[in-house]
Amino acid sequence: MKKRTIGYAQFGPAFGDRTTNHETIRRMAGNGASADLLVFPELCVSGYDFRDRDELASLAEPFGSGPTSRLARELSEAHDTTIVIGYPEKAGDQLFNACVLTAPGGTLANYRKLHLFSRESRIFAHGDAPPPVIDTPAGKVGLMICLDWLFPEAARVLALTGAQVIAHPSNLVLPHCQKAMVTRSIENGVFSVTANRIGTEARTDRSLTFTGSSQVLGTRGELLVNAPLDAEHLGLAEVDVDQADDKMITEENHLLEDRWPDLYRRLSGQHP
Amino acid sequence: MKKRTIGYAQFGPAFGDRTTNHETIRRMAGNGASADLLVFPELCVSGYDFRDRDELASLAEPFGSGPTSRLARELSEAHDTTIVIGYPEKAGDQLFNACVLTAPGGTLANYRKLHLFSRESRIFAHGDAPPPVIDTPAGKVGLMICLDWLFPEAARVLALTGAQVIAHPSNLVLPHCQKAMVTRSIENGVFSVTANRIGTEARTDRSLTFTGSSQVLGTRGELLVNAPLDAEHLGLAEVDVDQADDKMITEENHLLEDRWPDLYRRLSGQHP
Repeated sequence: MKKRTIGYAQFGPAFGDRTTNHETIRRMAGNGASADLLVFPELCVSGYDFRDRDELASLAEPFGSGPTSRLARELSEAHDTTIVIGYPEKAGDQLFNACVLTAPGGTLANYRKLHLFSRESRIFAHGDAPPPVIDTPAGKVGLMICLDWLFPEAARVLALTGAQVIAHPSNLVLPHCQKAMVTRSIENGVFSVTANRIGTEARTDRSLTFTGSSQVLGTRGELLVNAPLDAEHLGLAEVDVDQADDKMITEENHLLEDRWPDLYRRLSGQHP
Repeated sequence: MKKRTIGYAQFGPAFGDRTTNHETIRRMAGNGASADLLVFPELCVSGYDFRDRDELASLAEPFGSGPTSRLARELSEAHDTTIVIGYPEKAGDQLFNACVLTAPGGTLANYRKLHLFSRESRIFAHGDAPPPVIDTPAGKVGLMICLDWLFPEAARVLALTGAQVIAHPSNLVLPHCQKAMVTRSIENGVFSVTANRIGTEARTDRSLTFTGSSQVLGTRGELLVNAPLDAEHLGLAEVDVDQADDKMITEENHLLEDRWPDLYRRLSGQHP
């Protein structure tokens, strides 16, 4: 039995204003200091709808040595909390839609979004590694970002790698994710924390309104806490993260061991 | 544009009474003669909760030459309808939870359930081939049975094999399937027809109540028609099955081509 408090910090980032966004993150992490795991939205230190790649590059920063990684590490130590923050990553000439994870004791990890939404593929490179699972004091935390929800392979790889909790920074505009994450939790027997942003950005020829409704789900898809559509919200739930290790859904059925991997070869690009 | 009528025939089978169940199937297929695809529930010619393997064996029949395959073929020719019926299959010494598909013109196919529910694994062998897709006058029809819904790999394999419509005979007792099938339709961009049974069986030390609520879903998860919890119901929807070939969910996002199969190798049992 490992009681842990896991949750999200939903807010509306100020486009291009890292200082203000870091202040919001710092404030909400302080209010959520009782959390063992606190997840912030995708790209919440920069905003989302970049006019072009140059604008994105001007707001991107390195993993580890950059200001957002340093902030996350500082907050993890100050509050004894595992922190996940979405940010634009600069790595040499490449730009990634990434999230950093820091945990008390010095753990530092990064994930680069695999499944890019809409115009993101014009300015971001996609990740080149499977989504990772990090062993933290809050449990084994798997990372995925926003549209990864639509591809069942992402959450499945996390579950097969041992994730107990999926941390899911998001900037959602499509309406289906929150319900689909119920399916992700049920089919994988994992907790999930979707941290979405709020607000509207009208910086290009399109206007994007983000749908809030961040949520924490239990291992059988039950809604533990969720946020309004359009207001800042800190949502925390106390859970026994080890429940995610119980994959038996009947006396005879195990969510992962009942799989037939040899018959799924088509999923990894092989002939069936 | 290929307008087709697809649907389900929800009813409560009489346990062990193939003659009565065949009559029900014949009557509902007649009432649903306007359908291009009509899906009947899992094991609907036998009932579900067998006392033991001997009882199951006494109700099982061969694929192709057995009475249910012959009935399906007859109904396909009589009504110009692709028919899917769940039945217990006997093949040599092995018993399978199977469904037969027949289409006008002589097409005959079979699927043996991969993911067995609860005590089924005590009396049935599991299928040893990926779920198949059959080209029929009603479109490209993929087959899966009941608990296969819980394993995203099943519907994904069908979509990657070209399925436009998933035919999904079921005997559901868990409550999550109908909503999870919305996710399956959305993530794969396919139509789905879940044909569930109704009624209660109390033949062993357990009582099973089946949840009805059969449904037809569109390629974006929209509910086209559904059934009550506990009444016989024929549900038909007219659809353009070729919509399932449109996998673009934004101008830049393709549900299947945006996948990264090399990064999903863990799903087919390989090291990542």
